[in-house]
Amino acid sequence: MEFNKILKNIKVYEAGKPIELVVREFGIKKEDIIKLASNENPNGCSPLVVDAIKSVANEVNLYPDDSFYQLKEGLADRFNLKSENFIIGAGSDQVIEFAIRAKANEKNGILIAKTTFAMYEIYARQIGAKIFKTPSDTHNLKEFLEIYQKNREEIGIIFLCLPNNPLGETLKREEVYNFIKKIDENTLIVVDGAYQEYAKYKDREREIKPKELIETFSNTLYLGTFSKAYGLGGMRVGYGISNSEIVSTLHKLRPPFNITTLSLVAGVTALKDTQFIENSIKENFLEMKRYQEFAKKRGFEYIESYTNFITIKLGDINSKEIFDKLFRRGIIVRDLSSYQLNAIRVTIGKPYQNDRFFEEIEKILIR
Amino acid sequence: MEFNKILKNIKVYEAGKPIELVVREFGIKKEDIIKLASNENPNGCSPLVVDAIKSVANEVNLYPDDSFYQLKEGLADRFNLKSENFIIGAGSDQVIEFAIRAKANEKNGILIAKTTFAMYEIYARQIGAKIFKTPSDTHNLKEFLEIYQKNREEIGIIFLCLPNNPLGETLKREEVYNFIKKIDENTLIVVDGAYQEYAKYKDREREIKPKELIETFSNTLYLGTFSKAYGLGGMRVGYGISNSEIVSTLHKLRPPFNITTLSLVAGVTALKDTQFIENSIKENFLEMKRYQEFAKKRGFEYIESYTNFITIKLGDINSKEIFDKLFRRGIIVRDLSSYQLNAIRVTIGKPYQNDRFFEEIEKILIR
Repeated sequence: MEFNKILKNIKVYEAGKPIELVVREFGIKKEDIIKLASNENPNGCSPLVVDAIKSVANEVNLYPDDSFYQLKEGLADRFNLKSENFIIGAGSDQVIEFAIRAKANEKNGILIAKTTFAMYEIYARQIGAKIFKTPSDTHNLKEFLEIYQKNREEIGIIFLCLPNNPLGETLKREEVYNFIKKIDENTLIVVDGAYQEYAKYKDREREIKPKELIETFSNTLYLGTFSKAYGLGGMRVGYGISNSEIVSTLHKLRPPFNITTLSLVAGVTALKDTQFIENSIKENFLEMKRYQEFAKKRGFEYIESYTNFITIKLGDINSKEIFDKLFRRGIIVRDLSSYQLNAIRVTIGKPYQNDRFFEEIEKILIR
Repeated sequence: MEFNKILKNIKVYEAGKPIELVVREFGIKKEDIIKLASNENPNGCSPLVVDAIKSVANEVNLYPDDSFYQLKEGLADRFNLKSENFIIGAGSDQVIEFAIRAKANEKNGILIAKTTFAMYEIYARQIGAKIFKTPSDTHNLKEFLEIYQKNREEIGIIFLCLPNNPLGETLKREEVYNFIKKIDENTLIVVDGAYQEYAKYKDREREIKPKELIETFSNTLYLGTFSKAYGLGGMRVGYGISNSEIVSTLHKLRPPFNITTLSLVAGVTALKDTQFIENSIKENFLEMKRYQEFAKKRGFEYIESYTNFITIKLGDINSKEIFDKLFRRGIIVRDLSSYQLNAIRVTIGKPYQNDRFFEEIEKILIR
């Protein structure tokens, strides 16, 4: 059967093996596996959320309230905005998809950092939009501006992933604002703040404030998620924040019931437990120091991280090899060689998980 | 800001008011509201599913296994096929979206019955595909064939919703096969079997067997869902079944982690409790008889239904008015006037819910 030509350039996404299979293959007990690969909150989620899910577990036959009324009200309250400033997505991923399908096309491409969140490029390819990338891996706004100015007619959206996944760096608010001022009002600027809760804790100058951002610049869309600091990666809930014109346009592409009944309850409840978030973030940066010290001791470079993970460059030691050796010992991290970087990205775990990581990697490095 | 032109023809989906607001507005207690509007399974879901959700409620920080290994194995087992024949969607809705984006475009439209599941048209509009509809409301294969033969070059996908939502009718397997034989192999035929569990119970001649369908016709895609008979509407899990060529093409459009961690567990567990499904379906058709008798007694026409809902045509009584009056009494049904039909669609509820429906509608009709 013939399909749309655009699909020819898209590779089928190859999912990793489920942990259960890894267990069988290497004979490691499931409880001995330490997964530091997906930037999940190692503290789980708020116990209030667990209770809330349990209490409505027998109502899963019912579709969720498709207006997501309570969740939008909760978010509006949190960000001092109105319900009409929010669109809910199945993870902020889905809001990325809405933005690309609304604004990009075969003539209007996207501009991104060389090494950044993979979904910008994947969704853009699905609709045949051209992808412009900066030469530098991390966000370099001078490069962004140069490429933008040279290709102004061909760029519909600029994505700034702040902090950046999978590298961890983030920009100062001031720099970002100065950059946005130089961009045409008809170009959409998406600020992906999936890890902003972490950045804001570490450095107030790097905090992007959604209300200020969207009220200052009419062409901005801020993305937030419950997947990281809130510990709800498995529930697939994210959101976009913008002016009502942009939000209502994106809503034209939203499928009904795009988050589950339990995800809705989880999101609403998670917003209420700010203590859980604070504790998670505090512990995260305490534990991150151990990774920084490890890198220094071993003479590895690392990228200063404003997130819940750290990217460590391995110098002349092959990252794929280190990844494999850790994997066989039950420690799962992310090898960044597919990004042409000889580095591993490690999610900051609980103290005992980090202990295991250091123990095993030291053994590997000594050999 | 300028957006893609295609969006100009799309209306923002206006969500219904959440029950909580209805409660406040009309002063009805939440527990007194009977919702027979969304074809949800009135028995909830299998108790095994409720237990399974509770037991993993504290693991929602973890992303699901993105290969959906266990769920596909369970489905492969159920349908006597292989994992490679399945694609999992956030509801079968999402598989409809994949199919439309893979095969339809501005030159390749879709062919559907005049009154059928709204999402075919909505997703087609999002990409600017032309929509061909039969003159008859219910599925009339003679009309499908005539329109197809006249517009062969402009039709990429034919959707057969069997049984049909929101009307309830379904076709005999034999007729469907004879129709498919006359269709070009390069035209994709989607058989949406969201309510097939009900049809199969009521009339074996109308059962569409996924394995037989896809092995006989290389251009077919079967859709199934956990939202109806399995009682998991709120969990958003559906699936597509086809040959591996079509399935792998649709996978190019699947976003990672498109169902939640709890939805995955719910789906896997729901497959194991066949007794729950059987009981639900049996009770459904017993209770449906009461609606048929009610219609006959009142002289209303109804469409013979192979689903968990019934469409009752109200003759010279205005359906919008009946809907409103029921609504004010706390009974929520679906008014079909937006489909240019003077009819209501009522989900078959539990006996006590149906009692309330008959009680209230009789009061309304007597006045």
